[in-house]
Amino acid sequence: MGDPTLTEIVDWFRGLQDKICSGLEDLDGTASFSEDRWQRPEGGGGRSRVIQGKHIEKGGVMFSAIDGEMPEVIANGLGIEATHFHATGVSIVLHPHNPWVPIIHMNVRYFETASGLWWFGGGIDVTPHYIDTNQASRFHQRMKKACDILSAKAYAEYKPWADKYFFNVHRDETRGIGGIFFDRLNQSSGASKDTCWAFVQAVGESFLSCYTELYEDNNDKIFDESHQRWQQIRRGRYVEFNLVYDRGTKFGLQTNGRIESILMSMPPQTQWVYNHQPDPQSEEAKTLSLLRKDIDWLNYKGV
Amino acid sequence: MGDPTLTEIVDWFRGLQDKICSGLEDLDGTASFSEDRWQRPEGGGGRSRVIQGKHIEKGGVMFSAIDGEMPEVIANGLGIEATHFHATGVSIVLHPHNPWVPIIHMNVRYFETASGLWWFGGGIDVTPHYIDTNQASRFHQRMKKACDILSAKAYAEYKPWADKYFFNVHRDETRGIGGIFFDRLNQSSGASKDTCWAFVQAVGESFLSCYTELYEDNNDKIFDESHQRWQQIRRGRYVEFNLVYDRGTKFGLQTNGRIESILMSMPPQTQWVYNHQPDPQSEEAKTLSLLRKDIDWLNYKGV
Repeated sequence: MGDPTLTEIVDWFRGLQDKICSGLEDLDGTASFSEDRWQRPEGGGGRSRVIQGKHIEKGGVMFSAIDGEMPEVIANGLGIEATHFHATGVSIVLHPHNPWVPIIHMNVRYFETASGLWWFGGGIDVTPHYIDTNQASRFHQRMKKACDILSAKAYAEYKPWADKYFFNVHRDETRGIGGIFFDRLNQSSGASKDTCWAFVQAVGESFLSCYTELYEDNNDKIFDESHQRWQQIRRGRYVEFNLVYDRGTKFGLQTNGRIESILMSMPPQTQWVYNHQPDPQSEEAKTLSLLRKDIDWLNYKGV
Repeated sequence: MGDPTLTEIVDWFRGLQDKICSGLEDLDGTASFSEDRWQRPEGGGGRSRVIQGKHIEKGGVMFSAIDGEMPEVIANGLGIEATHFHATGVSIVLHPHNPWVPIIHMNVRYFETASGLWWFGGGIDVTPHYIDTNQASRFHQRMKKACDILSAKAYAEYKPWADKYFFNVHRDETRGIGGIFFDRLNQSSGASKDTCWAFVQAVGESFLSCYTELYEDNNDKIFDESHQRWQQIRRGRYVEFNLVYDRGTKFGLQTNGRIESILMSMPPQTQWVYNHQPDPQSEEAKTLSLLRKDIDWLNYKGV
């Protein structure tokens, strides 16, 4: 085994994009990904892949591997010296057509500098338009399993981190049922690089099975216009989070990144309804009541 | 005449809201405004009015008059001492149903502190889904007329300010055809408070005639699904501006304002299409080509 090299990590991420795209094409069954390859004048580039199918209404699976001299302002933000750096990763957002299927997001990434610093970051979080507590619980069990590869306490750290990160402060609500979020994972965690990498690979590998289960459990459910309306309102909240809080999006907007790749996470049909309040007895209200931090989804038993 | 008192300004703004709402109800002819009155625990409150009609698909006309002790962080941002303050104003965004009718935004506001500081701010800007250069020119002529009340050079200052402010940096495009924008207008401009106020009143008064003209010129035009799709894509850009750059929105989100009033500017049906590129010969492409700063709309003669 031994520590993975940069090339090994880049190759594995590229292969992960291929594997996930092919799996999602099978799942949707009506469309295939189109690809835009792009290059960065300063170094590196990526493959942006987008699907617009009958079931996956809009989905993006992005791979990139860039390098260059780090701008001072970014180095300052990271609290490190400005040197040559490499950054690579895979980033996914899927907006399903059926409102009973959740929106899902995954990101796995690796960063290293010429001065010898390195870290991993990433996470998966699920944003159901309608929360099914059993499904939420099963998803978190999968996340726990991936985290256990790193350490017995990793899930207990990364689950609350996701709650805190994927949070619309101005709405006082979580984006969805959370998941895991981690950043700057390196040897200071006590784990070897090899172990960190095995964990990140497990997160990446888990994506397709997580989504396949959520998709197959929900995609045949019948919906009508009222469900779609609610879905579009919830997509509005997703937009609010991504444009107001999401670090990756803000970073991309500030650094003149490829705008269509950065904003591939934006949903298709979306709407804002002034002061929308669902009926207190409705499924919609039940979902709202569960959009909060610190729910113990792993052992969720309902009330 | 003489300088206006705080009470006179507040009363005038409240009356402006009434007048504009009544004018817009006549224009739409199918719906009336609903009102939410709200109070701020720290002092003051407002009247948020929203219309969801057949022609004005979603529109908000907000009045507020608040006061209290200024938080340190805001005083620092303004570069002034934290004292008791009053802030009052009217804020409007209208999203029309017909894609040929532009989105319009207006804001007029007044601010004063117990320590004797005061200023006005505001502006009007127009965001056509399809730019008609003659209409753009006429709108700017109206803005020039209002600015002339303040001084012969005001338009030459406030028009570029709007170009600069209503700009989606990450798209490298203006939000629309601009208009005017001004802030911290007080005696340091060389004009008396009385004259500043007459100008701000003229801006407020001009709103209804500007919008009525734009509405009547366009609302009977025929449109189909392709126009609506473009409208929804342009609304997405409006969302991007408001959530990423708009100072009022950011201020509201950061200071725990009434969220439904702050986000009343969000459009109804909206969509994001990956890498959308209109046909180079189309009306849509023509509009894109005109979404740039420094167009001399006052004397626009086309090309």
